[in-house]
Amino acid sequence: MRPKKRAHKSGMSPGSLVYVGDKTAASDARIMLFDFDEHHVVEKPVHNIVDCLPFANAKSVTWINVDSVLLPGVLEAFGKVLNFHPLMLEDILHTDQRPKYEDYGDYIFFVLKMLDFDTIKNEITIEQLSLVLGENYLISFQERPGDSFEPLRERIRKSVGRIRKSRPDYTAYALMDLVVDGYFDVLEKIGDKIESVEAILASNPKTDTLRMIHELRRELIFLRKSVWPLREVIASMQRSESPLIHESTELFLRDLHDHVIRVADSIDTYRDMLSSMQDVYLSSISNRTNDIMKVLTLFSSIFLPLTFITGIFGMNFHNFPELEWRYGLQITFALMVLLGVGMYLYFRLKKWL
Amino acid sequence: MRPKKRAHKSGMSPGSLVYVGDKTAASDARIMLFDFDEHHVVEKPVHNIVDCLPFANAKSVTWINVDSVLLPGVLEAFGKVLNFHPLMLEDILHTDQRPKYEDYGDYIFFVLKMLDFDTIKNEITIEQLSLVLGENYLISFQERPGDSFEPLRERIRKSVGRIRKSRPDYTAYALMDLVVDGYFDVLEKIGDKIESVEAILASNPKTDTLRMIHELRRELIFLRKSVWPLREVIASMQRSESPLIHESTELFLRDLHDHVIRVADSIDTYRDMLSSMQDVYLSSISNRTNDIMKVLTLFSSIFLPLTFITGIFGMNFHNFPELEWRYGLQITFALMVLLGVGMYLYFRLKKWL
Amino acid sequence: MRPKKRAHKSGMSPGSLVYVGDKTAASDARIMLFDFDEHHVVEKPVHNIVDCLPFANAKSVTWINVDSVLLPGVLEAFGKVLNFHPLMLEDILHTDQRPKYEDYGDYIFFVLKMLDFDTIKNEITIEQLSLVLGENYLISFQERPGDSFEPLRERIRKSVGRIRKSRPDYTAYALMDLVVDGYFDVLEKIGDKIESVEAILASNPKTDTLRMIHELRRELIFLRKSVWPLREVIASMQRSESPLIHESTELFLRDLHDHVIRVADSIDTYRDMLSSMQDVYLSSISNRTNDIMKVLTLFSSIFLPLTFITGIFGMNFHNFPELEWRYGLQITFALMVLLGVGMYLYFRLKKWL
Amino acid sequence: MRPKKRAHKSGMSPGSLVYVGDKTAASDARIMLFDFDEHHVVEKPVHNIVDCLPFANAKSVTWINVDSVLLPGVLEAFGKVLNFHPLMLEDILHTDQRPKYEDYGDYIFFVLKMLDFDTIKNEITIEQLSLVLGENYLISFQERPGDSFEPLRERIRKSVGRIRKSRPDYTAYALMDLVVDGYFDVLEKIGDKIESVEAILASNPKTDTLRMIHELRRELIFLRKSVWPLREVIASMQRSESPLIHESTELFLRDLHDHVIRVADSIDTYRDMLSSMQDVYLSSISNRTNDIMKVLTLFSSIFLPLTFITGIFGMNFHNFPELEWRYGLQITFALMVLLGVGMYLYFRLKKWL
Amino acid sequence: MRPKKRAHKSGMSPGSLVYVGDKTAASDARIMLFDFDEHHVVEKPVHNIVDCLPFANAKSVTWINVDSVLLPGVLEAFGKVLNFHPLMLEDILHTDQRPKYEDYGDYIFFVLKMLDFDTIKNEITIEQLSLVLGENYLISFQERPGDSFEPLRERIRKSVGRIRKSRPDYTAYALMDLVVDGYFDVLEKIGDKIESVEAILASNPKTDTLRMIHELRRELIFLRKSVWPLREVIASMQRSESPLIHESTELFLRDLHDHVIRVADSIDTYRDMLSSMQDVYLSSISNRTNDIMKVLTLFSSIFLPLTFITGIFGMNFHNFPELEWRYGLQITFALMVLLGVGMYLYFRLKKWL
Ligand SMILES: [Mg+2]
Ligand SMILES: [Mg+2]
Ligand SMILES: [Mg+2]
Ligand SMILES: [Mg+2]
Ligand SMILES: [Mg+2]
Ligand SMILES: [Mg+2]
Ligand SMILES: [Mg+2]
Ligand SMILES: [Mg+2]
Ligand SMILES: [Mg+2]
Ligand SMILES: [Mg+2]
Ligand SMILES: [Mg+2]
Ligand SMILES: [Mg+2]
Ligand SMILES: [Mg+2]
Ligand SMILES: [Mg+2]
Ligand SMILES: [Mg+2]
Ligand SMILES: [Mg+2]
Ligand SMILES: [Mg+2]
Ligand SMILES: [Mg+2]
Ligand SMILES: [Mg+2]
Ligand SMILES: [Mg+2]
Ligand SMILES: [Mg+2]
Ligand SMILES: [Mg+2]
Ligand SMILES: [Mg+2]
Ligand SMILES: [Mg+2]
Ligand SMILES: [Mg+2]
Ligand SMILES: [Mg+2]
Ligand SMILES: [Mg+2]
Ligand SMILES: [Mg+2]
Ligand SMILES: [Mg+2]
Ligand SMILES: [Mg+2]
Ligand SMILES: [Mg+2]
Repeated sequence: MRPKKRAHKSGMSPGSLVYVGDKTAASDARIMLFDFDEHHVVEKPVHNIVDCLPFANAKSVTWINVDSVLLPGVLEAFGKVLNFHPLMLEDILHTDQRPKYEDYGDYIFFVLKMLDFDTIKNEITIEQLSLVLGENYLISFQERPGDSFEPLRERIRKSVGRIRKSRPDYTAYALMDLVVDGYFDVLEKIGDKIESVEAILASNPKTDTLRMIHELRRELIFLRKSVWPLREVIASMQRSESPLIHESTELFLRDLHDHVIRVADSIDTYRDMLSSMQDVYLSSISNRTNDIMKVLTLFSSIFLPLTFITGIFGMNFHNFPELEWRYGLQITFALMVLLGVGMYLYFRLKKWL
Repeated sequence: MRPKKRAHKSGMSPGSLVYVGDKTAASDARIMLFDFDEHHVVEKPVHNIVDCLPFANAKSVTWINVDSVLLPGVLEAFGKVLNFHPLMLEDILHTDQRPKYEDYGDYIFFVLKMLDFDTIKNEITIEQLSLVLGENYLISFQERPGDSFEPLRERIRKSVGRIRKSRPDYTAYALMDLVVDGYFDVLEKIGDKIESVEAILASNPKTDTLRMIHELRRELIFLRKSVWPLREVIASMQRSESPLIHESTELFLRDLHDHVIRVADSIDTYRDMLSSMQDVYLSSISNRTNDIMKVLTLFSSIFLPLTFITGIFGMNFHNFPELEWRYGLQITFALMVLLGVGMYLYFRLKKWL
Repeated sequence: MRPKKRAHKSGMSPGSLVYVGDKTAASDARIMLFDFDEHHVVEKPVHNIVDCLPFANAKSVTWINVDSVLLPGVLEAFGKVLNFHPLMLEDILHTDQRPKYEDYGDYIFFVLKMLDFDTIKNEITIEQLSLVLGENYLISFQERPGDSFEPLRERIRKSVGRIRKSRPDYTAYALMDLVVDGYFDVLEKIGDKIESVEAILASNPKTDTLRMIHELRRELIFLRKSVWPLREVIASMQRSESPLIHESTELFLRDLHDHVIRVADSIDTYRDMLSSMQDVYLSSISNRTNDIMKVLTLFSSIFLPLTFITGIFGMNFHNFPELEWRYGLQITFALMVLLGVGMYLYFRLKKWL
Repeated sequence: MRPKKRAHKSGMSPGSLVYVGDKTAASDARIMLFDFDEHHVVEKPVHNIVDCLPFANAKSVTWINVDSVLLPGVLEAFGKVLNFHPLMLEDILHTDQRPKYEDYGDYIFFVLKMLDFDTIKNEITIEQLSLVLGENYLISFQERPGDSFEPLRERIRKSVGRIRKSRPDYTAYALMDLVVDGYFDVLEKIGDKIESVEAILASNPKTDTLRMIHELRRELIFLRKSVWPLREVIASMQRSESPLIHESTELFLRDLHDHVIRVADSIDTYRDMLSSMQDVYLSSISNRTNDIMKVLTLFSSIFLPLTFITGIFGMNFHNFPELEWRYGLQITFALMVLLGVGMYLYFRLKKWL
Repeated sequence: MRPKKRAHKSGMSPGSLVYVGDKTAASDARIMLFDFDEHHVVEKPVHNIVDCLPFANAKSVTWINVDSVLLPGVLEAFGKVLNFHPLMLEDILHTDQRPKYEDYGDYIFFVLKMLDFDTIKNEITIEQLSLVLGENYLISFQERPGDSFEPLRERIRKSVGRIRKSRPDYTAYALMDLVVDGYFDVLEKIGDKIESVEAILASNPKTDTLRMIHELRRELIFLRKSVWPLREVIASMQRSESPLIHESTELFLRDLHDHVIRVADSIDTYRDMLSSMQDVYLSSISNRTNDIMKVLTLFSSIFLPLTFITGIFGMNFHNFPELEWRYGLQITFALMVLLGVGMYLYFRLKKWL
């Protein structure tokens, strides 16, 4: 996960629609409309935004999902057809928003971050989900095609749970619940990674172990940025006076709020653990330096004196009677062995061995 | 203590009952019912949840303890018989909740974490305790069989203190008080561990001392997560407008609140102490590196020059008149002793010895 | 970016006008006046401040931009002509203000910091922008000539967007929006620098890498000081009861507030990343020390014993029968090779190689 | 100062009276009663708690000081005679309370921590002081005999200041003022210790300097725990609606509050200073390692090459004409001196000497 | 700057007047009275406090400046003549107060800290300034003779600005403004010191560089303690309901508040910078250790093998045919040069040189 680049948006009029994210293909993107109440359900692709208007106005719940904010002309069309504020459209297109809740009166605007773990690249991907909640409709704008909303679509089709009996605010809640469920999955992946790094730390810390810890800390920094403001977003929804959010949904929002707090708590717990792991790593390096130093000192302390002794008897003094002794060599050897063993025992005593 | 894994809950309808914890056997789990007032006490096992209904409705206090949330069908049965909200049932089953307080109107839902010290594995165990407090009943859902509530059961049987004269909110308080008493026991165990690590630090810090500090910090991180939100839970109970919590219990809740704050304070104190101990450990490594370096430098500084001198007189120059001196050897020796002693004194002076 | 020096302002009467910044030339500075409403637009340089008065009083929106607060006599003239409070004039001249919002009743005073990235000096430049918002006018005081408001001037001239249809508070918002757009640009530059330092860290950290990290942390410290209080400034505007700020502008201020929070968040994210990068750098030094130590220990441990052996056979004892052995040299060599290889294998085993 | 052990209190009924502190002898403990108003003063030992009742009820101020909470039966007797709540009695006995303020309606309960510096053991001692303030009485429960209240007793006896003219709340304030005065004394002792450690740091940091810093940090951690909550206790007294605390005392409480904040500020200042001192210590170790390394490197870099040269001329090649040169030895010596001086100058240049 | 010692104040009755600071001579201390309104100004020394009473009561503004709180009998005299509360007198004498604001009804009491930079001792000096603001008077109590209020005295004498037209609260503001101006001067001195330490860090960090950083951090800790609470003091003045503080002064207090926040911000900025500089310093030590190690390793790795080779040919084996080779010496030399150059190139390759 990396911060997004804002291209060349600077200096433009507020509300100008210029995309700031990665302009990868929006080729297989589509717009799908669900219209349902307790008794019926319609599911159909949208080719012309104007076609949505009768559904959006009708009393039944209409959920329009836009697969990619990059679909040309779509945002502008929604703006015109449903009379959306240009600042909101700009925020939908600027996919570097932080999670937020904004009440525009006739409609409410939410921004969430969908997190996923890309098992191929082995990193977390992030995608902005913008929701516009009206009296009879909910529009969800995704950054890229692909989502994890299929279970909800099934529940709508098969009328599982209360989804078909509720208003669009419950549909919005259901989407947010799925997004937050995804957070738990991503957290679990991170938890697994942390555990594996901990195992490496305990057995054999290597040069790149800290880099792994750094990578994880970095991912948590970005995770936190995505999750933390969501607490306030959901709390704002709960406290909201807007008639668009019904009392019956509040209990569900309370549950969701609780889930998000748990995610945020876990992120902080992981941060604390990583910081503690890093300390362990750094001390393991120091300990290893110590170990290496001990070997070096041991060798030097034993062999420097011994070599000095051989040096003495290698001197070419003419008058050097000891060299002529009968057991000179043997005595010297005995002395050297004694010295070597003595040093060794001394280091043993000092607990260096 | 490790964070729990959430299995494959992602994407399900809110309120679906899927257990997320360890599926160890719930084989010896039971459901026990106490029904009592000032004048009578009934204690009997429950085999069919429906049998609880008359007790739960009757004016006398009914405490139903469920030993394991995994007992098949039990949660669903309670949900049906007492008309509980599915989100609450989900939270009872998801044993990775944080401590919380939720008022559902007819009943109040609490989540606590029971901590225990497993002396065999030498680690803290954690178990979720979910309480549902109604007008005439209290239901406690444990994660696993086994608890520390026996003293309370005895007090009910023998009518010790005010338990038999009070309403179910006091029973709930009494359970929470026992749970918090358990926190003090666990804290004491951790305190003992910290003291023993401190003793090691003061005498002979070893390579794995930091790992022990890390383990303790890790345990405190999880402890904190269990205890910290409980402050707010009990404060919410005290402030509660619900008729289910009587004024006479508030004084006891205030006392409990105070106990939890003391636990939380101690956790923070231990964290500070561990962080300071870690600094001491790291500096002890550096000091030891210094000590080793001093020995190495001492040996090198004394023997490198001496060996150099022997090397000089080991050279094979033909014209080397000093080698023929009468006391060349003795003079050289004197010189070497002087040099060695000089170096030694120099290091003494520098306070390196 | 460096903190400004306050020259010798100490002890003066509150409201005395003495400039505290860099007194570089204000030679090409000018005062430009825009007067516009939906139907007309006038753009003309101002040579005498009194000429502004009829415009400032007229119902149409008047935007007067002063290129440099150092223009002699200009501040005093505005003070007299428009009856400004001396403390405000002092604050305009003291360009070391923090961003602030002050309501003086008839007019509102804002201070902002304009940031720019000087690609030649490769550092962030900072310039104070003071805004005075009256009922029918907006005056902007810059510290130095040069700004990034040209896009707004074009929008006024060509009547793009709602600028010509709005009151001076929207003009103030539009200026602030451009200033905040500039923050994103500066942040992007910093983000690029951080990424390049991260790349160096990953490949080949050098002695001055930490100095680069330190430089970046230093820049973020100053950035934060410029941006953080702006949150409160804009929030104060939103909450303001002043009739000078119209309800129609509030939605735009909310958007601006959100942008500033995003900038502030990013600054904090970068701080966290830099702090983590610094840890990686410090551990990379320790790792390198370890690597060097290993080489040293390896050489010492292999050659010290070998040299000792050669020393033995270099001793001049007369009675040294081994020297006369037929294969003495070869045996010794074999022994030395064995020892050398043994040491090497031992280090391999210890994972030091 | 160490955290207290809670013996085996777990699982007991709330309000059970079991002491959790050190059960050292309460043998010379006594209960003393003062009864006074503007016109009279009575001072007498209490042998039977019931004897206190008439005094406690009478309009004159009654101060009963209990020297030790361990005096057998005393707490229970007070509970019965003055009808105290069991939870309060439990808190008086559990001397591991944090400072707190609890209003029980007819009486108010305070807990404070008395700090003293034990000059023999060279450590801070801590003692719980529990105060029960009624309409006409004040009871002070100490943990151990011995206190610093003698000046107050003298003031009562001799009617110094306003003590004899005031109600029991002023007596309580006077006790608390003496306790807080004790904090300043303890802080001064700690300040002296910190200064002496700073002096050691500046001259000659030793291996156990960090342990001294650690000890001081540890003491501050416990000090902070005793002092910090007292701010809130005194603020609660000031804000209190209770008729037991008269308006005339509020000015004195404000002064006391201010004193406690100063103590708390000083504790934080000392913490900051100790943390900075620790950094200085750690860097002094690193600097010393550097110094030792320099000496080692200097000796090795000078003598390794020189010894190599002597080795060359110690080789026994038959064809080694240089050995036969007339001034071979002298030339070699000159070379070695040049090399040695060269290395020395090189290190000088590198600023290593 | 050091924390003050509280002598032996412990145990005294609240409000007892014992000085706790340094008892240096108050010999040249004086009491000066200004009495002025728009039309007249009187300036005269006070020898008897009672002489102040008519001035203090008269409608004109009376500013009495006491040069030293140590002037014998002065505080008590003011207490009696103007009926001041003993706790306030005690606080004036105890010059270790933190900045505070206390409303005593008829008069308001402020404490501020005057900071100055003693260029001779090269350290910050601190002096308590206590202000008592009545309806028609302002009394300023200094700790020592000497202040920076001369500019204000001149403004009073010459009727510059609004001082002569305002009430005593403006005089109090004017004094506080001068005190805060002094903070900027002190900050600038600290900023200069930080810059010079940064320059040392960038070029040639020495052993005592960290001590300089530590000294600066220490000074900032004390600065912060003096400045931080002043924010709240001035905010309390602004919010004050007291008739002694007129609405016309509020604008000036807002400006002052803003100045203090800027000082506080700068202190925090400097703290952050120092903490970052310390990291740079510590890493520079590690880098130097690395550099030294490299030289050591280089010499050892080159000369240990070479010396070993000379050792081989220095062995005295009788059967050592290579010694008799014609070009044995030359071949050996070639080998040694090759080895030396090889090692050197190897280290080059490893980027160690
Ligand atoms: Mg915008
Ligand atoms: Mg824009
Ligand atoms: Mg926006
Ligand atoms: Mg998508
Ligand atoms: Mg997706
Ligand atoms: Mg969910
Ligand atoms: Mg759920
Ligand atoms: Mg769910
Ligand atoms: Mg839930
Ligand atoms: Mg259980
Ligand atoms: Mg259990
Ligand atoms: Mg308890
Ligand atoms: Mg650190
Ligand atoms: Mg001013
Ligand atoms: Mg000023
Ligand atoms: Mg100002
Ligand atoms: Mg400019
Ligand atoms: Mg510019
Ligand atoms: Mg913008
Ligand atoms: Mg209790
Ligand atoms: Mg208990
Ligand atoms: Mg208690
Ligand atoms: Mg005592
Ligand atoms: Mg005592
Ligand atoms: Mg006192
Ligand atoms: Mg006092
Ligand atoms: Mg006192
Ligand atoms: Mg005081
Ligand atoms: Mg003075
Ligand atoms: Mg002065
Ligand atoms: Mg000023």
